[in-house]
Parts: sequence; C-alpha cells; structure tokens
Amino acid sequence: MSRSEARIVPVSWKNVTLAGAFWGGRLAANRRVTLPLEYDLCRRTGRIDALRLGWKPGQPNPPHIFWDSDIAKWIEAAAYSLATHPDPELETRVDGVIELLANAQLPDGYLNSHFIAVEPDKRWSNLRDCHELYCAGHLIEAAVAYAEATGKRAFLEIMSRYADHIASVFGRGPGQKRGYCGHPEIELALVKLYRATGNRQYLEQSAYFIDERGREPHYFDLEARARGELAGRNREWHGDAYEVLQAHQPVRDQTAIEGHAVRAMYLACGMADVAAETGDAPLAEACRRLWRNMVDRRMYITGGIGSSRRGERFTFDYDLPNATAYAETCAAIGVVFWAHRMLQLEANAEYADVMERALYNGVASGVSLNGTHFFYANPLAAVPALARFENLAGHVAISRQEWFDCACCPPNVARLFASLGQYVYGQRADTAFVHLYIAGAARLEVGGRHLLLRQTTGYPWKERVRIEVLPKSGADSAKTPARFVLALRLPGWCREPEVAVNGRRVSLRDCVRQGYAYLDREWRRGDSVEVRLPMPVERILAHPEVRQDAGRLALQRGPLVYCLEEADNGPGLNGLCVPRAAKLAAIFDRKLLGGTVVIRFTARRQRVADWQGRLYQPADRAGVAPVKITAIPYCQWGNRVPGEMLVWLPAMPG
Amino acid sequence: MSRSEARIVPVSWKNVTLAGAFWGGRLAANRRVTLPLEYDLCRRTGRIDALRLGWKPGQPNPPHIFWDSDIAKWIEAAAYSLATHPDPELETRVDGVIELLANAQLPDGYLNSHFIAVEPDKRWSNLRDCHELYCAGHLIEAAVAYAEATGKRAFLEIMSRYADHIASVFGRGPGQKRGYCGHPEIELALVKLYRATGNRQYLEQSAYFIDERGREPHYFDLEARARGELAGRNREWHGDAYEVLQAHQPVRDQTAIEGHAVRAMYLACGMADVAAETGDAPLAEACRRLWRNMVDRRMYITGGIGSSRRGERFTFDYDLPNATAYAETCAAIGVVFWAHRMLQLEANAEYADVMERALYNGVASGVSLNGTHFFYANPLAAVPALARFENLAGHVAISRQEWFDCACCPPNVARLFASLGQYVYGQRADTAFVHLYIAGAARLEVGGRHLLLRQTTGYPWKERVRIEVLPKSGADSAKTPARFVLALRLPGWCREPEVAVNGRRVSLRDCVRQGYAYLDREWRRGDSVEVRLPMPVERILAHPEVRQDAGRLALQRGPLVYCLEEADNGPGLNGLCVPRAAKLAAIFDRKLLGGTVVIRFTARRQRVADWQGRLYQPADRAGVAPVKITAIPYCQWGNRVPGEMLVWLPAMPG
Repeated sequence: MSRSEARIVPVSWKNVTLAGAFWGGRLAANRRVTLPLEYDLCRRTGRIDALRLGWKPGQPNPPHIFWDSDIAKWIEAAAYSLATHPDPELETRVDGVIELLANAQLPDGYLNSHFIAVEPDKRWSNLRDCHELYCAGHLIEAAVAYAEATGKRAFLEIMSRYADHIASVFGRGPGQKRGYCGHPEIELALVKLYRATGNRQYLEQSAYFIDERGREPHYFDLEARARGELAGRNREWHGDAYEVLQAHQPVRDQTAIEGHAVRAMYLACGMADVAAETGDAPLAEACRRLWRNMVDRRMYITGGIGSSRRGERFTFDYDLPNATAYAETCAAIGVVFWAHRMLQLEANAEYADVMERALYNGVASGVSLNGTHFFYANPLAAVPALARFENLAGHVAISRQEWFDCACCPPNVARLFASLGQYVYGQRADTAFVHLYIAGAARLEVGGRHLLLRQTTGYPWKERVRIEVLPKSGADSAKTPARFVLALRLPGWCREPEVAVNGRRVSLRDCVRQGYAYLDREWRRGDSVEVRLPMPVERILAHPEVRQDAGRLALQRGPLVYCLEEADNGPGLNGLCVPRAAKLAAIFDRKLLGGTVVIRFTARRQRVADWQGRLYQPADRAGVAPVKITAIPYCQWGNRVPGEMLVWLPAMPG
Repeated sequence: MSRSEARIVPVSWKNVTLAGAFWGGRLAANRRVTLPLEYDLCRRTGRIDALRLGWKPGQPNPPHIFWDSDIAKWIEAAAYSLATHPDPELETRVDGVIELLANAQLPDGYLNSHFIAVEPDKRWSNLRDCHELYCAGHLIEAAVAYAEATGKRAFLEIMSRYADHIASVFGRGPGQKRGYCGHPEIELALVKLYRATGNRQYLEQSAYFIDERGREPHYFDLEARARGELAGRNREWHGDAYEVLQAHQPVRDQTAIEGHAVRAMYLACGMADVAAETGDAPLAEACRRLWRNMVDRRMYITGGIGSSRRGERFTFDYDLPNATAYAETCAAIGVVFWAHRMLQLEANAEYADVMERALYNGVASGVSLNGTHFFYANPLAAVPALARFENLAGHVAISRQEWFDCACCPPNVARLFASLGQYVYGQRADTAFVHLYIAGAARLEVGGRHLLLRQTTGYPWKERVRIEVLPKSGADSAKTPARFVLALRLPGWCREPEVAVNGRRVSLRDCVRQGYAYLDREWRRGDSVEVRLPMPVERILAHPEVRQDAGRLALQRGPLVYCLEEADNGPGLNGLCVPRAAKLAAIFDRKLLGGTVVIRFTARRQRVADWQGRLYQPADRAGVAPVKITAIPYCQWGNRVPGEMLVWLPAMPG
C-alpha cells in the first residue's frame, strides 16, 4: 500500500508493550475489568440482541440509531487487546458478535441494526441526525483492527461490502446522493479501510465526504425538504446553525474549530489522514488553522474540549467554564486521535505535547482507576450542589457512572487504552521517533534495520527515562552498528531537558528541531540514552482572556495537571488560595490512589468565622489562616468519597 | 381600617416628592418617556385590544395568559404618576382602559382577557401554569392605586367584585377549590384591597392562599389529574419539583428561599403583609428565615436574585454566577417590595439596606437612563460573545431592549419608580422614619402633629444630607414645639456616620437601635438635622463559599456598586486586576452619563504580548503593566456603546 513518504508512521499497537507505574494498572484494568464489563452492558442493555434484528413494532427498547457504534468500539478494543494479550474466550465472544453482524447485513451490503429492524423505510433519509454513516465508520474501524489483530478477514470483508455500498450511494456521480454524515467518523474510518485493503476507492470516498461537507445547496436542507420538513435547522438540538455539525461552510474555508467537539475531532482526523495520504497541502493547512484555534483558544488545561453541555460543543474563543465544563471524555480522546494524526503529518512536538496533555489529564480522568466507572463530562471543578441543576442527560456528575444511555465514552476509553502503544513511537525512513515516555518496548524498522527500543522509566512520577537501543538479531547482524536517527520528544512543559547517550551529555542546541532532539549516529547493541525531564511544580496561568480563570492559577508537574479534592482538604476549596511564596513539594505517596505523586503546600484559607454569616463585606474585615493542602493529579480525582474538586485555585484578592 | 399598632406605615407616594441628581432625571424619564412608551407598546402588541374580547379561533396573536398583568402594572404606574403629576390626557387613557375592563368583566365577576376570549372552558383549570390569580392580583393592585390616586372607585369596584368571585371559588368551604396560584401575587394584592376597602374577607382570603400552599394532597396534582394529565410535574418548564413555585411544602415549613425568584418575592410580600395585619408571629418568623437565607446566601451584591436563567430561579446557597446571572429586573424589584414590607414589621435598618442595595443597583440597572430600554436579566459581567449561547427567550443580552414577549419588567420598573416616594419615609405612633436619603419632601403625621420633612442632599453622589423639620401650620400651631422621634437610618455600608441637630453632634452610641438613630426631642419649626455618611471607596469581598467571586473584589461607594465598562477601559476586562495599594479616587464627572461619580485608579493589566498566542503558561512568564482605569456605577452600565462589563475584578495571582 502506498503511503506518503513524509508521513511519520505510528509503530503499530501490535509491536509495542507498555508497563510501568502509571499505565500498568490502568491498562490491566482496561483489559481485565472494562472489556468484560462493557460486553456485559452491551448485552444487558439489548445492544447485542439488536443485531439479531428481532425487534418488532410495539416492543420496548427498540435498537437505538447509534447502538451499533458502541458494539463496534468494543470489538475494536477487544481486537487491540487480543493482539498483545491473547484470550480465546474473548476472541470467541467477538467472533459471535461478528457472526450476528454477518447475518444482519443485507444483500446490498447495508448494515445497521436500527434502520433494518426499526425504520427500514427511512434508510439514508436523514444523514443530519441519524448517525448511519457514523455507525458504519465505527464498524469499519473495528473490522480493520480485528483483521490486523487476528488475521481473520471475515469482518473486514463484511465492512468492505458495506463501504462499497456506501460508495455507490454517496458521491458526485449521476443518481448519487451528495450527502455526508451529521456526525463525522466515516471519513477517518475509510482511510483506515484503504490502508488495510489498498483499495484507493475508500480514500477517495473519504475525500469526497470531507469536501462535500458544508457546500451549497446544503445537503441537510435538501434531505429535510425531501422528508417534507422545513429546510431549516433542527432547532431542538442543534441550535441555530449547521456549525454544530461542522457543516456551516466547506471545511477548507473554516478557520475556527466549531460545534460538537467529538464530531469536530473525528472530522479533523479524517482531514489529516486524507492530507497525509494524498499530500493535499491545502487540506493539511486547513487542519493547522483549526488546530491553532483549538489549542490556543478553546482547550482546557486538561486537554478537554467542548465547553458547553448544550450541544456538547465548542462555544467561543477563551470561553472555558470550569464547574460546568462539559469536556466530554470522547472529545479528549478525539484530541489524542487528532494530535496523533497531526504528528504523522509533521514532526512537531507540540502535537505530542497536546496528545500527552489530553491523555494524562482529560482522558485518564474519564475512567476510574479500577476500570469500572466513567465520566462523560470532565469538569475542572466539582460543585456537588450544581449537579442537580446542570446534570443534563445524566452526563454531568461528580461521580463516575457505570454506563450511560448514550454510551459512547466507556468503549471509546477502552479502545484508546487497548491501542495506546501506537501513540508512543513513530518511524519515518531512517528515523525512529519517541513521542511519549512510557515504560515498555517497541519493535520497529528504520533505515532497513529491525530494532527494539526499550524504555525504563517511572514517568510521569519520575523525571528520568532510559532508552536502550537493541538492534534485533536476524539477517542484519545485531552486532553491526546501525546508522539511524533516534528522535526524542522534549516535552513543551519541560524547561531544561537533558539528554545523554551512553552517559555523555548531548548538546541539545545543535540537534533540536520543533521540539525533537535528533540523535543521528551509529547505534550499537546496548547503546542507551538517558533523558532527564526536570519536573518542578509549575504555577500555570491561563490567558488573560479566559475570564473563568482570571485571578486563579493551576498546578502542573510534568504532564500532570493537579487538583484539590475535598477528600484531602475539606470543603470550601474556593476559600483557599496559593500564596506567591508557597513551597510546593512533590512527594510520592505509595499508599494513596495506588501510588501517586501529591503536591503538598501551605495555603491560606479565608477565615469563615470572620464573616459571621455575611455574604459581602469589606476586604479589610476578612482574614486568612494558614492551612496544609494536598493536591493530587487531576486524572485521579473522584476515586474516593465524592465531594468538591478544584483545578484553578484562587489567588488572594488585594 | 385596622392596622397593627406595631406596623411602620409607609408615608404614601401621594405625600412625598422626590428630586435630586440621581432620581430627578430617572423619575422624569419614567413619567415622560416610559409611561407613554409602554402604553403604546401594550397597544401595538394587541394587549389593549385583547380586552375587547374580539379574538376568534384561528386568528393570529391570541391574548396571552398574562397580558392583563402588563396592562395592570401600566395602570398602576399611571395612577401613582397622576397623584403627584396630574395629566388629564393620561387619566383619560387610563379611564379608557378601565372601561374596557368593565365591559370585559363577566356577570359573576370573572375578568381575564385570555380565558374569556381564548379558552372559556378552561377557566380555573390550571392554576399551576396559567397565571389567572396572578393577573387578578395585578389588576387589584392597579385598582387600589387608581382609587387612591384619583378618588375614582369604578375600577376598585370591578376588582372587588372579581375578588368576591375568587373568594367564592377558592377556600376550604364545601364545594370550593382548595387552590392557589402557581405565580404568587394575589396574596399581596388582597391585603392592599383589604386596606383600601376595610373588608376583612380579603385579608382572610390572602391568608388562605398563603397557608394552603404546598399542602398535601397537592392541589397541582389534583387539578392535573382533573385535566386528565399525569399528576406529575410539568417537567418541561418547572424542573422536577414544585419548589420552583414555592409549593413544595407549606410556607411556614420552608427554610430556604427557593424557585422562581419573582414568585418567591411576591409570596414573601404577601406573607409579610398578612403577618403585619394579623400579628401572626410564626408567619413573620417564617419571613425572617427566608430573608436570612436570601440575604446571607443567595443575593448578588447588586441586590439581584434568581441566579439561573433556567426557571428564572434561585439555585443553591452561594451559587452566584456573574456572566450568566439572570437577576431579573422584576426580581430585584421584588426584593425592594419585600424589604419594604419587612421594614414595616420591624425597624431594622438591614431591611432598608437591602432595599437600597436592590434599588440603586439591580433595579436601576434594569432601565436605560433615558427610560426607553430595559434589561430583563441583569448580569454582573457582560461577555458579548456569550449572548449567542445563553440568550434564552431573548432575556439575556448585553444591550437593553425596548420590550419583551414576556413584558413583565418594563411596567414593573415604571410602577416602582412612579411610587418610589413611599419607600423613603415611614411613621409609627410618635416616630417618623427616614429610610432612604433622597432629596425631596414628605408630609406626614406623627404624635398627632402634621409635619413636613424636607431633605436636601446630593446623595448618593455626596455624603451630606440635610433634613429640615417643618411642623405644619394648621390646628396645631406651627410655632409650638412638637415632641416626636425622628428615626434616621444609618446605612450598613457606612462605617462612621455622623448626625448633628442644629449643628450639634449627636452621640450615636446612645440612640442607635438596629441601625436607626432615634432623635427624641421637642422639634421646633426650622430645626434641621445634618447627616454625614462618609463614602470612601470600599473593596468588597464575597463570602469564601461564592466560588464565582473567589480571587475577586468589587468596588462600592455608598450604596452604589461599581463596574468597569469596555467603553472606558477597552476590552479584556478580566485581564485587569486591582493592586492592594491602588488609590481609589471618587471623582464627580458632570459630563459622563448625565453626571456621575466615577472611580479612577491605576490597575495592572496582564501583558497580552507576553503570551504570544499561548493559552497556558507558567506564571513567571506573564507580566503586568500599569493601566488607568475608570469604574462607573453598575446601575449606569450599558448606556453607551455595547461591550464588556465587569463587577467582580480579578486579583493578581501569585
């Protein structure tokens, strides 16, 4: 299959093992707890049975329009897991579901449990709202992963037939519908299918979906008129613009990241993928424009995005409310997906920085440490009393939940974690990239040589990383030195990184480009690189335009954003403040939350006694008293007794 | 008519004239601009025509269920205005509307333009949602005011007949409905009707409505069942509890001020009125409990209440969002109404403090200086881009509007301003109270003597008030000294008030009780009292539990809360902060906003250049630069070019 030479190809999840203090436990929980749990929930909620197409009008619990996507993400997660952790029982389960899918598929290739069983006459009649192509996309992703993991191609063939059917229905040819999905996803899936099959038609179909989006006459208007509805917008849910669906204008004309955050991410992934495969420079440039807007103006410090619960959407520049933040887990996962694709377009460590930020904060917060419970929304402040007033659709809560009616997040976490290996390393021609520092090992091929990279590190708790370079034995003698470049990401959060090869300090001034240190040398078996990433606790400010963070600061150490929890510090967290001179001590507490680095310091607490019940009073009548504070990593919040939580800590007013 | 001896009776709006720098222009605008404008809008929108009952099914613009209340408030406002500023043209207009009402009234006394013309079969079938008794209450208030202003009793008789009808329908007698209104208002109106007519049945009917509220079996359930609906709640609008309607439990059991803020205020007014008239101490105590909760935990520094746009309601203790504050103008007016009634129960200056706070800030902000435009919501921060996402029902905006589909606020402002005189003075036995300092004069009777009090003051711009005591000539010789008590409110915001009588300083230590200085002496014609209320600019903090104000402070001078506007200070107001040592200079600017005291100081502004487009960075990389700032009174914001506004100013993070 053809790939743009310039693309930095991820090292497949099949070829990477991960371990270590931070990820070891989470990935094991994902495999052992989350995956079986989610299958069980898909079964108990009727999602599996729905594939039997047995639902009849009048019966309860009709298959929902996006149930197929939940199953698809679960299969995809299972596939990744099977590749590195064979599990015959799990494989049998997956095969069982695939058999149901095979049986459900119509002769023309169409496959959707809702529209076949519930609304057979409405197929492809409402792309704006009904998620048909979205579900198809997720099934395609699952099929590609399962084929790659197991070598079994039945599911891939099912989905190729479905993709062929889709390609026959949608396009610019005579008699075709010039449609595209209200929820992007199929675009990135078709690129995966192209890579898996080599069939360039899928790449072209993806490019069609991307470029047709937002053109006039507007397809969503046309199809609404065809349904006999007003051509206007779906005001009930979408607000007053196609912006929510990223369909307000052609994607190449869009300058700001708009609308439903998950949709925006999946669309951007598809755009980046097509740009990478076709060398479409203007499309890549459109990606960069949207990226700049998101990263510079619309992203939480946690990597979370989509600040508004209503529409699960981006709002406007610098609008980042904390207690009511939506910051859907799926959206932060989408940030990881997109950042990873931008990193394939361009070796710029900023993409890996954002990927890491989202992964260690806004994604990791989405799942409990034991893998059983999930956040849909990931606020940056937990205000227990607020949930009653703002808990739309049960998505906004101060405790993780086992499942949701709209259950997109749990299986999305599962598939990201199960495939986490592919985000760590990349390769291009004679260069091996290390994007993330996670203990483990990777098999890769650079400059025609197979090699093993082995990372030993306590990151992100500890600041040292050791990378052993082990050219693999085989046709190319393991003892022959191999000339290739090892490119190590120097995280943007780190002010004074140090790199040494075999104990000799490398002058970074000479070898750093766009945040990567390029070590170009003859590597011998046993060579080792030491990376030291000093992690003092940083006081972080948000841009002055972020009104919700004005007068506040956040604590960050390494890639981890910190928060205060009521469990450690009592209630009334907004009555605290961090003095300018406070000594912020990072301490590893092996008993807390399975072992974590806490930040301890002495803050000031407003003396509530000075208030005597008053709501307002002159500043000179309110005093403060010192108080010992413990901050924990944001990604670990909500794993103890529910209560307040706070990321942005107030400063003392003057 | 009988009144509880202990009650501090307001000096009627008929007997008070007001003038001065702050109120003179606003009251003139209310009379000359707002009143004609609102009549015209009632006419143009069909509200007047609706009273002709000519609407037929299928026609557009059916009379809305609460249109009658808009007309009622306009008549009430006109009545107050006519008493102090006779205007034959206006009186003719009012008489014309009253004639329409007379013609509309049914033989049994029923009077409601919606239910007579649009849904004649649904009369009294949905008290929860349909505002029938609410509209009746406003018409009663208007009728009482018009009779008192003009001596014409036709409208009062119409409304007495309607009240008699209501009393026949609702009560605990056989065959009566045990209902009460979803929107309180009739309760306070019936007490006014009782005071105007001396008919104690109206007082008893009010007490019935108050005490029936929230009892089980729940009337709103019973009537919903009678309508053939589920007995559950109206989830579309009311959320999940009768709490929104203050009907979740009997009012005497309620401990927190809950639900729709305007409704809560009107109900509390009725409770306080009944308590004042009947001496019902437990009911007065229930009022005090709700008051404490509101004032200590749920009121903006502007006196605005009801923080949530959804349900126009109170949420929970210390939840006071700024940019999304609802703080409906009508709700702040309700605070004035309730505070005024609490002040009748008890001479505690705290009630007058809150009344003044609401009046000078959250109410006065509701109308433009020229009287033509109105705010429905009164946020404490204007974020122009937010309106698109949060402007529910067109109520939340950064510019005042001429009118609203739900037009409660404009005529509510008009009737409050037109009757403002009654809030200034009170009398009880031998004591004359001065609650508010506003230039003007009042005729009142204390200790059997008629007297004139004349205030000369530039308040709230200036800190000195001169009160001349002028026993009136007549049966009681003007030259004979009169023994009575002059009780002067010492505002809670003032740290060091000074009072002098005829130039001799009074020792306040000896004569102050609950915030009033009681000057008990023989008063002679020409005696004068000088009150000095030093008004340094105060830095105000909110209670540490108010998360939205943490790390922020507000500026207040005298009763006025200040704000920054983009018009004076450019955009990016959240990037500013007030240094601890900033000298806050209060300066009268006679050219600005019709003459106002601004606060000038040197603040610090985050240097946006230090950010280079980044969204987050370590605190040590972000610098500040001095910048000259001008703050204006909050009540005057939005009278220039629309833009940002901010009350709570950030402090410098450390």
